[in-house]
Amino acid sequence: MKTEQMAKLFSQVLPDRCLVSNEAALRTFECDGLSAFRELPGLVVLPDNIDHVMTALRVCRENAIPVVGRGAGTGLSGGALPHPEGIVLSLSRMNRLLEVDAENRIARVEPGMTNLKISKEVEHLGLYYAPDPSSQIACSIGGNIAENSGGVHCLKYGLTVHNVIAVKVATIEGDLIDLGHQSLDSPGFNLLSLMVGSEGMMGIVVEATVKLLPTPECARVVMGIFDSVQNAGDSVAAVIASGIIPAGIEMMDNPAIRAAEAFVNAGYPVDAKAILLCELDGTEDEVTQQIRHVEEVFRDNQAKDIRIAKDEHERQLFWSGRKASFPAVGRISPDYYCIDGTIPRKAIGEVLTKIEQLSEEYGLRTANVFHAGDGNLHPLILYDARIPGQLEKTIELGSKILQLCVEMGGTITGEHGVGVEKIDDMCFQFTDDERELFHAVRRCLDPDSLLNPGKAIPTLARCAEHNAMHVHHGEVPFPHLERF
Amino acid sequence: MKTEQMAKLFSQVLPDRCLVSNEAALRTFECDGLSAFRELPGLVVLPDNIDHVMTALRVCRENAIPVVGRGAGTGLSGGALPHPEGIVLSLSRMNRLLEVDAENRIARVEPGMTNLKISKEVEHLGLYYAPDPSSQIACSIGGNIAENSGGVHCLKYGLTVHNVIAVKVATIEGDLIDLGHQSLDSPGFNLLSLMVGSEGMMGIVVEATVKLLPTPECARVVMGIFDSVQNAGDSVAAVIASGIIPAGIEMMDNPAIRAAEAFVNAGYPVDAKAILLCELDGTEDEVTQQIRHVEEVFRDNQAKDIRIAKDEHERQLFWSGRKASFPAVGRISPDYYCIDGTIPRKAIGEVLTKIEQLSEEYGLRTANVFHAGDGNLHPLILYDARIPGQLEKTIELGSKILQLCVEMGGTITGEHGVGVEKIDDMCFQFTDDERELFHAVRRCLDPDSLLNPGKAIPTLARCAEHNAMHVHHGEVPFPHLERF
Repeated sequence: MKTEQMAKLFSQVLPDRCLVSNEAALRTFECDGLSAFRELPGLVVLPDNIDHVMTALRVCRENAIPVVGRGAGTGLSGGALPHPEGIVLSLSRMNRLLEVDAENRIARVEPGMTNLKISKEVEHLGLYYAPDPSSQIACSIGGNIAENSGGVHCLKYGLTVHNVIAVKVATIEGDLIDLGHQSLDSPGFNLLSLMVGSEGMMGIVVEATVKLLPTPECARVVMGIFDSVQNAGDSVAAVIASGIIPAGIEMMDNPAIRAAEAFVNAGYPVDAKAILLCELDGTEDEVTQQIRHVEEVFRDNQAKDIRIAKDEHERQLFWSGRKASFPAVGRISPDYYCIDGTIPRKAIGEVLTKIEQLSEEYGLRTANVFHAGDGNLHPLILYDARIPGQLEKTIELGSKILQLCVEMGGTITGEHGVGVEKIDDMCFQFTDDERELFHAVRRCLDPDSLLNPGKAIPTLARCAEHNAMHVHHGEVPFPHLERF
Repeated sequence: MKTEQMAKLFSQVLPDRCLVSNEAALRTFECDGLSAFRELPGLVVLPDNIDHVMTALRVCRENAIPVVGRGAGTGLSGGALPHPEGIVLSLSRMNRLLEVDAENRIARVEPGMTNLKISKEVEHLGLYYAPDPSSQIACSIGGNIAENSGGVHCLKYGLTVHNVIAVKVATIEGDLIDLGHQSLDSPGFNLLSLMVGSEGMMGIVVEATVKLLPTPECARVVMGIFDSVQNAGDSVAAVIASGIIPAGIEMMDNPAIRAAEAFVNAGYPVDAKAILLCELDGTEDEVTQQIRHVEEVFRDNQAKDIRIAKDEHERQLFWSGRKASFPAVGRISPDYYCIDGTIPRKAIGEVLTKIEQLSEEYGLRTANVFHAGDGNLHPLILYDARIPGQLEKTIELGSKILQLCVEMGGTITGEHGVGVEKIDDMCFQFTDDERELFHAVRRCLDPDSLLNPGKAIPTLARCAEHNAMHVHHGEVPFPHLERF
């Protein structure tokens, strides 16, 4: 359906302030954080409340109009890429805090509320919301739910799925359903966990109840400095194996260290092969004890130096380089491509070494800065889109790295979702049976595939084609390229 | 299909040692822990390995034979109640430890392995498996997965769903699918969480990968003694609200205290209205600090006495009464019926007071001993099945208590599952839309309803009938009664 026609249809049932139909304004919504993929939506609908959402979905259902849900548009896998003949349902105006129950340590919020805002709203109660994606200042809880977002602290406190206890969902059928419960367990099948991470393909979350945690009494950070990536990787596995679960444990390799240091002067050792930033939180005593323990593990794994942030100021300084590392890499390369894959912790050293080899093979620099504790890699491939062929080579290298992750027993995405970016990589992560099951479950909630069609789960035909190409060229191909 | 016919069919494809068909032997499988419901199965199949499971499922699929999966038969909601024309697929022989990866802190086990055995097998590594249902010495991990089992320590360490990271499932279609992953997050929809707690209605788990945790350095228990159930209840909410998450916090009311004390002489104060047993674990320092904090909260809530177990011996003594409380109640009453419902923590005092009123109204004694920290009630209704009408009254009172739980914002089951016991109670927990969605999702994996048919999720017709009866009598009826 064309924009004009859609605008007419929706203006019969929704106030004008909720509709965006002029091309310049639609442009704002043409991509999310994965800006290499762009598409102008047919119409943007900005509901004020649940009734608006239900009304919009009912119109879409009756007229077979695709619906792409959108939170803050910070996603990195193109999950909110518009459909040219569909609407973007942007939840940004539904951003209120509905209820805080400090005694039960939960908050009920609208989906458009930003992640960080939740913590800010309950700070005076000594509480906070734990998952902390890098984009937390901007990203919305609705988007976090769609992508099952993680963050530095998810090692200890879990992903979004572990911190959302109930959601209210508007279905494409125009029903409102409640999934999950305030209780630890609830009867019936666990459709809440199914909804979390389903990338907007099963319904539109219109309300979420999230767990709040007490702010830790104390948080300190240890920096381990290593002459070898292997030793740093081994230290991560050893810390966890020793029984400590740090609040977060992040790793940066030399190119990432240099880029970050040049940008923010965090005092990082620019000649180190790798650093680890390990944050411990809890009571004073507990943290003191754990720091001693982490130091010991680092030393056992040939750390050449260990620094402990002496106060809150230095803790923030240590983190500043890590937090600024993506823009820092942006300063040393015209373009970069951020990969998101997972591997078993114990394979970190081996995988980083192989990435280095692949990097040399492709003649493209990489920088690694990532959530080491849960084996969630974020290799950044540095390239220059102006040089013909470099983008294609970059994508190819990225896919090679993801295949390496799968071969090592890992996965093709840790926390950024599949979206459009990795839909073909799903062909080598899952079997036909498994993918068909995903489709079948999805059809229970969206029989006509109107909710975010073409994302996250490839069709069998797509994978067949993918594999056919694979056989033809003798290696896994990169049909992504067509779409650039 | 008759037993003889089934035995013939299965003996063509499975060794005789895997089949049980004589009536005396079948009798062993006629019920699980909910012995008020009994049914002789058509045949029992005891597979040695995954191939046997696949073979059995294929035969069932081809011949439309219902399949009831069974772990150790310790379930309390009749989830493993046999189907008279179906097989019981008992996984008890598949009980091996397949792999321990201490570095990644995971174990891969067969489904028939008992819960406690997992911990025993990894004890020498300083690790254990956290969920600890009361039946942990006997219950199997496969059964735990089917019911999403909890236990005393699930307050801090989560339910089964939080501690199982991957499963291999044999589907009724005869496929093997892998759900979940060693990584914290994995791409695709979260079908693992859907499988956990699905009461054997979506597939047969033939292998599970579970998280192992480091054994805490120290565990101590505080007993709070109260003159009022309300104050004890308020203390629980206050402990959690204060930011401490104890390893477990259990509550016993006066009848439970008296029964337990008479049985095991744990040193419980028999005149107290309620006691709380609060276990703290972690490092020495952390535990010492938390104990001080819990004492303070107890005192603020008018605890009339507080005792701290001075050593491991006394800790075990404190727990002995709690652990023996069910058999202890069995000693003072010919029969008892254990209810399992949840309520918000802050409502504990109010709900216990109302249960006391209901108890008086029905002329039936109740004893309460339960997981207070997560608001998971276990009222025991004391009755005598030999007195005509008492069982019926008991069931009626039980259902009233569950309705009270739902009214207070809770649920009809905390950790025992729905099974056959609570299938009608599901009618007032969920809407038609929600139940229909459960059925739809289930059909993706079991299109002909061969896997544990008639359990957990009532049909719309059943609920319509239930509600119709409700209108007719002017109150929610108890169609359970028909089945006794």
